[in-house]
Amino acid sequence: MNDSFEKLKEIFGHFPGIGPRQAERFAYFLLGRDNGYIEELKALLSTLKKDVIQCSECMRYFAKKNNIALCSICSDPNRNTEVLMLVAKDNDLITVEKSGAFSGRYFVLGGLIPILEKVVEKRIRLFQLKNLIERNIQIKEVILALSATHEGENTGDIVEKAIKEINSTIKVSRLGRGLSTGLEIEYSDSDTIKEALNNKK
Amino acid sequence: MNDSFEKLKEIFGHFPGIGPRQAERFAYFLLGRDNGYIEELKALLSTLKKDVIQCSECMRYFAKKNNIALCSICSDPNRNTEVLMLVAKDNDLITVEKSGAFSGRYFVLGGLIPILEKVVEKRIRLFQLKNLIERNIQIKEVILALSATHEGENTGDIVEKAIKEINSTIKVSRLGRGLSTGLEIEYSDSDTIKEALNNKK
Amino acid sequence: MNDSFEKLKEIFGHFPGIGPRQAERFAYFLLGRDNGYIEELKALLSTLKKDVIQCSECMRYFAKKNNIALCSICSDPNRNTEVLMLVAKDNDLITVEKSGAFSGRYFVLGGLIPILEKVVEKRIRLFQLKNLIERNIQIKEVILALSATHEGENTGDIVEKAIKEINSTIKVSRLGRGLSTGLEIEYSDSDTIKEALNNKK
Amino acid sequence: MNDSFEKLKEIFGHFPGIGPRQAERFAYFLLGRDNGYIEELKALLSTLKKDVIQCSECMRYFAKKNNIALCSICSDPNRNTEVLMLVAKDNDLITVEKSGAFSGRYFVLGGLIPILEKVVEKRIRLFQLKNLIERNIQIKEVILALSATHEGENTGDIVEKAIKEINSTIKVSRLGRGLSTGLEIEYSDSDTIKEALNNKK
Repeated sequence: MNDSFEKLKEIFGHFPGIGPRQAERFAYFLLGRDNGYIEELKALLSTLKKDVIQCSECMRYFAKKNNIALCSICSDPNRNTEVLMLVAKDNDLITVEKSGAFSGRYFVLGGLIPILEKVVEKRIRLFQLKNLIERNIQIKEVILALSATHEGENTGDIVEKAIKEINSTIKVSRLGRGLSTGLEIEYSDSDTIKEALNNKK
Repeated sequence: MNDSFEKLKEIFGHFPGIGPRQAERFAYFLLGRDNGYIEELKALLSTLKKDVIQCSECMRYFAKKNNIALCSICSDPNRNTEVLMLVAKDNDLITVEKSGAFSGRYFVLGGLIPILEKVVEKRIRLFQLKNLIERNIQIKEVILALSATHEGENTGDIVEKAIKEINSTIKVSRLGRGLSTGLEIEYSDSDTIKEALNNKK
Repeated sequence: MNDSFEKLKEIFGHFPGIGPRQAERFAYFLLGRDNGYIEELKALLSTLKKDVIQCSECMRYFAKKNNIALCSICSDPNRNTEVLMLVAKDNDLITVEKSGAFSGRYFVLGGLIPILEKVVEKRIRLFQLKNLIERNIQIKEVILALSATHEGENTGDIVEKAIKEINSTIKVSRLGRGLSTGLEIEYSDSDTIKEALNNKK
Repeated sequence: MNDSFEKLKEIFGHFPGIGPRQAERFAYFLLGRDNGYIEELKALLSTLKKDVIQCSECMRYFAKKNNIALCSICSDPNRNTEVLMLVAKDNDLITVEKSGAFSGRYFVLGGLIPILEKVVEKRIRLFQLKNLIERNIQIKEVILALSATHEGENTGDIVEKAIKEINSTIKVSRLGRGLSTGLEIEYSDSDTIKEALNNKK
């Protein structure tokens, strides 16, 4: 097939959770759409970034309205501004927000840092995070709400160090480890058992 | 989120094999790309349909070159023009071609017809197929290479009837049913057993 | 744990489809049953082989009744005695019988022969099969209803050779290969496509 | 098939994780074994319960040796006798023990109590547990190490109430809830997020 087809396949192959075979199906699928469909898709891609802006505080994406630069959470006067929760992705923020368990503010790191990555700024918004913490002197606690994976822990270590360098009095905490809903003891790993025992209540 | 985001989610949700959750991840994934990435994607979508054309005979997509309207198979003088194989999708044609077992020509129907669909022209290229058969009077046999599913059988019945109305002397055959590679007797359904017995050799 | 526990785990680990982890769960499960349960299980194991006998013709297992040595199929005068179907397991016979597509008699080989196995008699009832064919001179065709796997094909080759050595006029056929119910063209392998083309009808 | 076969299928169908289809395969598998195999299996079933005894304290099973009634953990003078961990199954005890995180003693309840079960004594060793707690007045804390499921929580509630009725000064704690190893924020449920926030550290 031609270059556009092959390059499109390659791009789709980097979409989250998509392998080469499904990427090829996507490319054929688009080939089979009419020009109107393709033009609509292109138009949506154009407006996506125009109609959506990043909150200047938490860096999450939200629908642009009246040139307001702050998202609904960062502009909400009832949120606790002393506690900041760091999440990796916009989706993670939504998951935590749905739980209704957190009333502070967020910051979206934009990713996680793989173990061997040297240039952490390529992966997460470290500069913006430092800037946010320097500006918001009322912050007393930062909660790292990162996945319980090697990447999540690595990212937590790096971010915690960076925060402490700016202000060593800020408390940096992490989401508790333990049994997640539905987990059976028999299928738990030793780390989870240890943490669950430490967090017994 | 804004309209573009929601519409894009909806469009991705109709990509083959994609559900609403993954569609949302795609939309967030694109939000996080820089403008250059989005522009490249848009450019590829534009050129995809420009650089790729549909073969005027078999209707499959191929890379445009020197304004030739026929794909490499339809323009190959060594292919047997007396046998035409009907497939549902471009991918199916590639699967059959990889097997090396077929030396005739193809026609890509563009889909399958669900059981209750009344307007079959919406689903498959019936008009182009009829036209092809009328023009190519040398065709002696049409092989229906359709999936062994209800939709595949329904499509086969409809297409066979349409071909017979044009030229009742054309032989219409279907791919043999039986044990596919790896299938164990214990897990075979009665239809497969019956067909495999009919096709014993 | 003690020897009985470990040996029982090992035995359960050789049950069809059971790995070491589930084998251990079985052993603990039995430990937790009361003596009555264990005694019932032992009694059933004792009577299983006493109440069930192997048909002296087809070698399948059936419920003993009035000291009749033939199963319901082998003693049925309406079955076609000129066609013999070879299957690997009792379950395969039941699957074919359910399809209603076969009216001849069966022989249960008792297994399949792995590619590198030298002593085929250890794996299948070759001696009994030869004997059956020598005794039943009315047999005109033997259908090999074996799984479409390497083991199935290897077993077919070995059995076919053995039959031909006894009586070269017996026709030996195999279940047809092709698309099994539900198979989509896109996900078919080249062998299946080839065979399905050979068996087109 | 005969009664023994059908009853054996039924019994295998109640083995942990086994459905009717696999239960039938087990029964056929045993039919195909020789008498020696069946006799060995029966002998192992006989010795299993003879060679293995239940610890008179924790109720777990262990290899009988020199008529000692206590398992290696319950007879170990270095274990902390002030903390008792309740687990549902022997396997759970082994999982916790492998983690190396617990140095107290155990009690194996023998199961979990479904939500609507009225007669809890049928499901767990409540009588033995109460007896153990009455005898061991040094116990200061009982840790409920039960699966993070509805059954696990129901069982925990019932057991906690029973313990408090005997001795209201005993602290009853439960394994901490939170992110288990490998869990990603995006795929966490609201309960897990809430508990992980409560257990942040």
